[in-house]
Amino acid sequence: MHNVISNLSEFLEFNEEEGKAFESILIYKKIKKNEHLLVEGEHCNYGVFIQKGCIRHYYLNDGVESTGNFFFENGWYADFESFLYGKPSMLNIEALEDCELYLAYKSDFDKLVIQYPIFNNFLREMMERTIKGLTGKGMTMSLLNPEERYLALIKYRPKVVERVPLKHIASYLGVKPESLSRIRTRLTKNDKNLT
Amino acid sequence: MHNVISNLSEFLEFNEEEGKAFESILIYKKIKKNEHLLVEGEHCNYGVFIQKGCIRHYYLNDGVESTGNFFFENGWYADFESFLYGKPSMLNIEALEDCELYLAYKSDFDKLVIQYPIFNNFLREMMERTIKGLTGKGMTMSLLNPEERYLALIKYRPKVVERVPLKHIASYLGVKPESLSRIRTRLTKNDKNLT
Repeated sequence: MHNVISNLSEFLEFNEEEGKAFESILIYKKIKKNEHLLVEGEHCNYGVFIQKGCIRHYYLNDGVESTGNFFFENGWYADFESFLYGKPSMLNIEALEDCELYLAYKSDFDKLVIQYPIFNNFLREMMERTIKGLTGKGMTMSLLNPEERYLALIKYRPKVVERVPLKHIASYLGVKPESLSRIRTRLTKNDKNLT
Repeated sequence: MHNVISNLSEFLEFNEEEGKAFESILIYKKIKKNEHLLVEGEHCNYGVFIQKGCIRHYYLNDGVESTGNFFFENGWYADFESFLYGKPSMLNIEALEDCELYLAYKSDFDKLVIQYPIFNNFLREMMERTIKGLTGKGMTMSLLNPEERYLALIKYRPKVVERVPLKHIASYLGVKPESLSRIRTRLTKNDKNLT
C-alpha cells in the first residue's frame, strides 16, 4: 500500500476505491536541504505529507526569523489560513533535510471530497491536529520559561533536539541562540536528562 | 428570530426546521462579573455563545495567570482540546463583565448533527476561527515587541482596550502590568493614536 494511504488508514476508515482515489491526487516532490517549498506571499494551496525528511515553517519580520514549528516524516502540514481561504501565505516553509514529499492540491482535494465525502474527516483531523499544535505551542510559550521550554522539547519532541540546528530551535523557543547555548551548557553541567 | 440563530445564519445556510432544532439545544446561563464558567480540570463539554458581556480564558502556572484570549458578545467559544477529545480542560474561563450566555452541550450537538448534518459546517467554521485566532496570537507574540503588540490591539481589537482591565491585557500580551503602564504612558506622551 502507498505510504500515504497506509498513514491515512491509521486515523480514517475507507475502502480500497477511496484509498486509490486519494492516492491519485498525490504529487511527489523532492526538495533539497535548505531549499524552500514556499515563500511568503505564495499560496499554500496544498497539503503536504512528509515521506522523508524534516521541514520547518517560519515568519520573517525585519529580517528576523521566527520559527513556528517543525514537521517530520509521516507528518502532514498545511498553512490553513492560506489553504482554506486562498490567501497568500505569511509563512515560509524550508526543508531542514533532503525531503521527499507528497502534495495534495486543494483543487484536487475539493473534487475528491465531492465524490468521496469520507475525506471531509481527513480535513477535520488535520484541523484538530493544527489546533492541538497551536494550543500546545501557545501554552509552552506563555507558561514556561526558556529552560523549561527546552526541557519539554527534550522530553516530548526528542526528534527536534536530535535533528534540528540549534539556531532554529532557539528561534522556535523564542530565545537567542546564545541564550539556548547557555541553557544547554547549564543543563549538561547539572547532569540533567539532556540528549 | 433567536439571536443565536440569527448569528448562525450569517455564516451558515439552513432552513427554519434546522434553525429550530439548533435553538432547542441551547441552554441559557447567566454569570456575574469575575465568576468562572469553568476551572481547570473540569470538562469543557459545551460550546458557548456570548449573548452579552465578555469572557477571557487563561492558564494558571504556579499561581501566575496567562491570558489566552478575550471573547465578546456575538462571539463563540469552546476549548476544543476538551470539547473534541473529552479531556479535562487546562483552561479557566472567567466573566470580565456580567454575562448572558447560551451553551450548546456536545452530547446534544452530536445528536443534532446526526439528524441535521448541515451543522457539521458549524463545527468546521468554529475550528477555522480557532485556527485563525491561535495563528494570529502566535504571530503577534513571536513577531512583535510588547509596544507593537499593544498598538496592534488598539488598531484591530479596540474592544479589548476599552473593556478589559489593564492587568488582563498585560497577561494577554505577555508583559508585566507595570511594563504595560509604562508603554501606555509613553504612547500617550508621544501623542500616538491611543484610545
